[in-house]
Parts: sequence; C-alpha cells; structure tokens
Amino acid sequence: MALRAVRSLAILSNPLRTYSTSGPLVNVSINEKTGIATATLQRPPVNSLNLELLTELCTTLEQLEKNKSRGLILTSSSNTVFSAGLDIYEMYKPNMDRYKQFWTTLQQTWINLYGSSYPTVAVVNGHAPAGGCLLALSCEYRIMLNNFTIGLNETKLGMIAPTWFAASMRNAIGTRQTELALITGNLFTTDEALKIGLVDEVVQSKNEALEKAGKFFDKFKRIPPHARTMTKTSLRGADIQALVKSRNEEMNKLTAFINDPKLQEAIGMYLESLKQKQNK
Amino acid sequence: MALRAVRSLAILSNPLRTYSTSGPLVNVSINEKTGIATATLQRPPVNSLNLELLTELCTTLEQLEKNKSRGLILTSSSNTVFSAGLDIYEMYKPNMDRYKQFWTTLQQTWINLYGSSYPTVAVVNGHAPAGGCLLALSCEYRIMLNNFTIGLNETKLGMIAPTWFAASMRNAIGTRQTELALITGNLFTTDEALKIGLVDEVVQSKNEALEKAGKFFDKFKRIPPHARTMTKTSLRGADIQALVKSRNEEMNKLTAFINDPKLQEAIGMYLESLKQKQNK
Amino acid sequence: MALRAVRSLAILSNPLRTYSTSGPLVNVSINEKTGIATATLQRPPVNSLNLELLTELCTTLEQLEKNKSRGLILTSSSNTVFSAGLDIYEMYKPNMDRYKQFWTTLQQTWINLYGSSYPTVAVVNGHAPAGGCLLALSCEYRIMLNNFTIGLNETKLGMIAPTWFAASMRNAIGTRQTELALITGNLFTTDEALKIGLVDEVVQSKNEALEKAGKFFDKFKRIPPHARTMTKTSLRGADIQALVKSRNEEMNKLTAFINDPKLQEAIGMYLESLKQKQNK
Repeated sequence: MALRAVRSLAILSNPLRTYSTSGPLVNVSINEKTGIATATLQRPPVNSLNLELLTELCTTLEQLEKNKSRGLILTSSSNTVFSAGLDIYEMYKPNMDRYKQFWTTLQQTWINLYGSSYPTVAVVNGHAPAGGCLLALSCEYRIMLNNFTIGLNETKLGMIAPTWFAASMRNAIGTRQTELALITGNLFTTDEALKIGLVDEVVQSKNEALEKAGKFFDKFKRIPPHARTMTKTSLRGADIQALVKSRNEEMNKLTAFINDPKLQEAIGMYLESLKQKQNK
Repeated sequence: MALRAVRSLAILSNPLRTYSTSGPLVNVSINEKTGIATATLQRPPVNSLNLELLTELCTTLEQLEKNKSRGLILTSSSNTVFSAGLDIYEMYKPNMDRYKQFWTTLQQTWINLYGSSYPTVAVVNGHAPAGGCLLALSCEYRIMLNNFTIGLNETKLGMIAPTWFAASMRNAIGTRQTELALITGNLFTTDEALKIGLVDEVVQSKNEALEKAGKFFDKFKRIPPHARTMTKTSLRGADIQALVKSRNEEMNKLTAFINDPKLQEAIGMYLESLKQKQNK
Repeated sequence: MALRAVRSLAILSNPLRTYSTSGPLVNVSINEKTGIATATLQRPPVNSLNLELLTELCTTLEQLEKNKSRGLILTSSSNTVFSAGLDIYEMYKPNMDRYKQFWTTLQQTWINLYGSSYPTVAVVNGHAPAGGCLLALSCEYRIMLNNFTIGLNETKLGMIAPTWFAASMRNAIGTRQTELALITGNLFTTDEALKIGLVDEVVQSKNEALEKAGKFFDKFKRIPPHARTMTKTSLRGADIQALVKSRNEEMNKLTAFINDPKLQEAIGMYLESLKQKQNK
C-alpha cells in the first residue's frame, strides 16, 4: 500500500503550483560554486513517476531553462532505485482528465529534458527500468552505480515503448542494440549497459558518480552556451519535432488503448499480485 | 548444368500453388514442443534464389504470419552454402513477365521476413553472398558457422545493392561499416563478420547453432506477442514503408536496366566462364 | 602576419581560373602507374581554408570527376598541420560578395568531395581541427599520423558546426559519438580518434600512410566504377541532397549572423590575441 499512500499524499500537496526550488517529490539544490543543479527524485519507495512527480520535474526543468542553468544532475534519494518508471496506478481505471494530464506532462518532461540547453547528467544510483531508463537516456551523460539494472523493458509488461523512448535509446546505443533491447525488453546489468554504451561510466558509489559528473560539466566551462545549445538542437531537434507533431495523435491512441477492458483486467491482476507480495 | 536442371525441374512443379508445409525447394518443419518452424533452403547445389524458391519461401512466411508462429529458423540443406544469392539465370535474357514476377516476389519475401511479427534467426551454415546475405540480414539474429563468408558483394559483380538491401545491413552494423562493406563489395569471413556485428554468434556446428537459436527464442517466452510485434514494427516499419512506396518505381528502373545489351553480354560471358569451370 | 600575407598573395594569383593540374595552394600530382591523384594543400603555415584555396580544391575535385579519376589522396605539405580549418579572416569584417563566394565554394567543395564517384583517402599528417576535420571526414577513408589532434571543435570557438559537418561525422562515427564530440567541441588525439572510428588507421610516417592508402585503393581494382559510384550515391546522396535543398537558406542565415557586431568584436579580439602570441 506504500505506493498508493505516497500518491494520495502527493495529490494533497497541490502538484500544479510552481516550485521555485524544491517540491515534496523532487528536491532541487544548486551548488553555489559551480551553478550546477541537482534534482533528486524522492518519492519512496521506488520513485514511480506519477502526475505529481512529473509535474514537479517538468516545472524544475523549465525553471532551469529560464534561469540559464549551468547544468543538471538527475538522481534518486533511494539507495536501490533510480526510478521504477511510470506509476502503474496512473493507468489503472484512470480518470481520463487526469490520465491526459499525466501523459501530456510526461511528453513535456521529455521534451524539456532531452532538449535542454544546459548539460545534463543522470547519476543512476539504483535500478532504472522503463520510464526510469527513459529519464536517464534523456540526459547527455549517464553514470551508473554497480549491481543495478537498466533498460526499456516495456514489452515484458505487454506494452510498447513509444517512438520517442526508442529514439532516445537509439541516440545513445544505435539502431541494432536498440532493436535487440526493445524486442526482448531486456534489463541490462550495469556492466552490460556499459559494454553497449547504454551508460557512459560505472562507479562504486554516489560520491564517485558526482565527482565524474563534475568532470563532464567541466568540459563546457569554456564553451559559449549559445553555441552548445544550437549544436544540441541541431542534433536532437528532429526527434523532438517528431513528438511535437504527433503528440495529439499519440494521446488519442493511448486514451483508446488504456480503456481496453482486457488491459485493465491485466493491470488489475498485476496490482493484486504486487499486494500479495507486500502482504507476505 | 546443374543449376539449370534444377531450375527446369522447379518450373514443372508449379511454383505458385500454396504450400501448407514444405515445397520441393523449401523444407518446412515445426517443432511440436516449441512451436518454432525451421525453413531449410534445399535447391542444390547452392540455393540460388530463383522465382520458384522465392515463391515457396514467400508463401511459407505468409503462412507462419497467419498461423501466429512462435518463431522461424532459416537455414540451408547444404553443408557449404547458405545461399549463393539471386539466380543469375533469372537475369539472363529474361522473359519480362517472369522477371517482373521474380523481382516482385523477392521484394515481398523481404517485406515478409524483415517485417515478420514472429522472431527470426538465420542459421548461416555456409557461404552467404549477396541475396544470401540479405536473407540473413532480414532475420533478427544471425548465428554463423566458422570458415565461411558473408556480405553484400554486389559491386564486385558490377551491380548495386538496392536501397532496402543497404537498409537491412545498416540496421545490423550501422552506417559506417555498411558504407565500407558496400562500396568495396566485401565478403567477410565468419570472424570478421562477428567483429563488425554482421553476425551475432559464431559456432562450430549446425547443432550448436540450433541450440543458440533456441536460447534466442527463449527470450520471448514471457513477452506478449502483440507487444513484440508492435515494437518491431515501430523500429523496422520505416524501412519497409520506403520499399512499399518505391517498389513500382524500382521495378520500372530494373526492367529498363536488365535489357541493356552490355549488361546481357556481361552476364552471358560470366555464365560461359562458369560453364568452363564446371566442365573442367 | 604570415596568414594575411599568404592570403594577399593568393588573391593576386586569380583564384578563379581553371587549374588543369596544380595551383599555388593545392599541388596536384597523378601517379602514372596507378592513376591515383594526390592533392596536397600547401598554404603555409597552417593550410587555412580561404576562398582561394577552396576554389582550387573545388576545381581540382571537379576535374578529377570529369576525368574519371581512379582515386584521390588528400594531404598536407606541412609536417604539423593537415588544415587548421576555415580562414578566420574570411569571417572578419567580410566583404559580403566575397563572403558569399567563400561559403558557396565551401559548400560545393564538400558536395564534390563527400559525393565523389572516385575513392578518396585523407592522409591526415598533422592537426585537423574544424574545417580540417571536415575535409578528412568527407573522404571515404582516414589514415592519421600519431601525436596530432582532430575534431569538429566549433562550439569551443562559439560557433556551430553546420548540419552537413555533423552529417559527415555521423556517417563516420555514429550518432552518440557525434553528439558528445560536437557539444564538447572535443579535439581527439590520434589514438582517441582511432578508438571511436574517427580515423581508420594510425601510422608513424607519411610514407606508411601512403602505403596504406594504396591498399585501400586496391580494394576497388576489380570493381566496375559505375557500380561503386551508384552505390556510394545511394548511401551518401541523402546528406548531399539535404544541403543542396538548404544551401540558399543557410547562406541567408549566415550572412545575417556574420554581421552581428558582437560576433565581429569577438573575432577581432581573437585575432588580436593571435597576433600577440606571434609577436612574442
């Protein structure tokens, strides 16, 4: 019941207000010396991405953009999970207004993160399946702690990774590895992820990860920000434009898909099995 | 003269009837335990792809699709050749109706194989030049026996690999390796092919290959087929749509090209040189 | 002041006449035995690409095309610099007619080199930043001497590598490495360049490089040239068409951009700092 409790709590906290710094689900701190922001996902136990968390994250990214941030580290307050991906409760018997807002916010979060003008590093300090992997893939650089798993495992859940999830993965590991990863829904160990380029560095501790992140940001110290931004846009712009063009169409397909009785039944059974496990 | 004899035989056998299981040129068996089909090319001596073989293969693929196959292994009955590629007799002084049917069937075979909803593994148990390499590339996974060669060597024959041959290769080994491979018409040894990702595994025997193929199919045991299919379509669909859009245009270009007197003369000389070799 | 002196000299030499063999800035020799042409950039001290050098190079490439060349080696007469890239004096307080001609010639040079029908090898016998790297990337094969650097470092200079620079790099090293290289403006050492595929071979001397280049050309000895050409066009044609379509638009954007007072001020300061260094 932990998941639902946290979710209810989050709803009460009014997720739509503008966070100037931190919210209850995303802690934002800025290093005064370097100007680098750290956004820490803090929705125990597994940082499931619900509307409230995504709204906070999306708003945080917009503010960093407006404030011409020097860089962002995205990480987790948990020692075992970076993010477990989309909160399945958002897909179970959803209120359609909320569901649409949920998906729209996910799309916008990706657009803001994948297309950010400032440098971004994911410090993957725990498991990162599905939507957790997407967040990591949307950054420019991925540093992962040992002994965890990462991947777009949607097919294993009977779902399909949207085209922009696939585009983010292709951008990192190329077409062949993306195809193999997506059709098998594979979760890679940290070492496997390093080998295929799904992460850029492997470390033993979060501190070591933060140190390596600092070295990545240092590469931009003498680079005029507008040149960096325009270069990144020229490389990632096509993927983003593809979603901008198709976002309404995608929403229409999903709202039809999510109400399929068989899908709802399957999700219900999956949630029931989770409860059984937690009650043991 | 072996090639021609086999070809004449094949024509007599009425290539256009529907094969529910096996035909004279493609043996199809289905493992009752796993549901995996094995299609074995059996057109001695070198599995040249003529209209009849392609028609059988194309029909086989359609039937597997309709029957919601659990998977396909594509291999050869020969111990030395997977497939020598397109039958050059189909291009020598062709009857144009037959030539058009030949090429249309090749296009459709690729569409069916590259875009199959079921998992596909090529067990490359012999040389796989040109069209033989294309068949292997159209599968999702390639397991190759040692001491053979594979590649799209069309330029060496004075021909151009069609764009969808190139797309299939790019999907497997990326843009750079594809460019080098295609402009040089390189045939890679098994080990070289492994190194650049043109094949996924190297084995010492066909039995070992079949075992490895089984492990690949096992990855899909718990994956809902519709999720796998939609994921594969989202990744390979653009390549297939590109051919669907251009297939008539391609045919028109080819029918003009194939009747070039110089090309026909060159093919004639090539066939004459083959006969000289066989008569020695 | 060496740069400016050389430039003035070049202008006087009437850059627009047609060079049947060599010009003052590009020495062209043809190996009578193999038919391979060697174009040696010879604009001391650093082969900065100004209008005159580009015009010579562009014309040379056109003539090789017309003469159905067997191949081209692109190299430098310097022992330390392959090419330092675009001549910054072409961008400083430019005469707009000359500036437009400069950029048009750069575009056409790339179209001719990247899309050449004949095989091309860059013998990178010195540093190759920015436009120098572009020339190397436009060839089919890159052989680099040890202990130099290469890369598209435009962002470090506050500039953006045009989309066709990026496309040329992506063609060689893929999407991921291109993104990392371009946003950081990284200059790779010879060994780093080999590791990511930015160059194909590393050698210790120019003689060794020329020997390796010979081996690359040997791959095409038995390949009918028209098959090679059509194959290369089918692979690189889309990148070239993208520039052909957008070249006027790019020019319009650049002519607006180049006259930005802040940019001119920045270039002025940069040139002043170069002079200070040279006077020391």
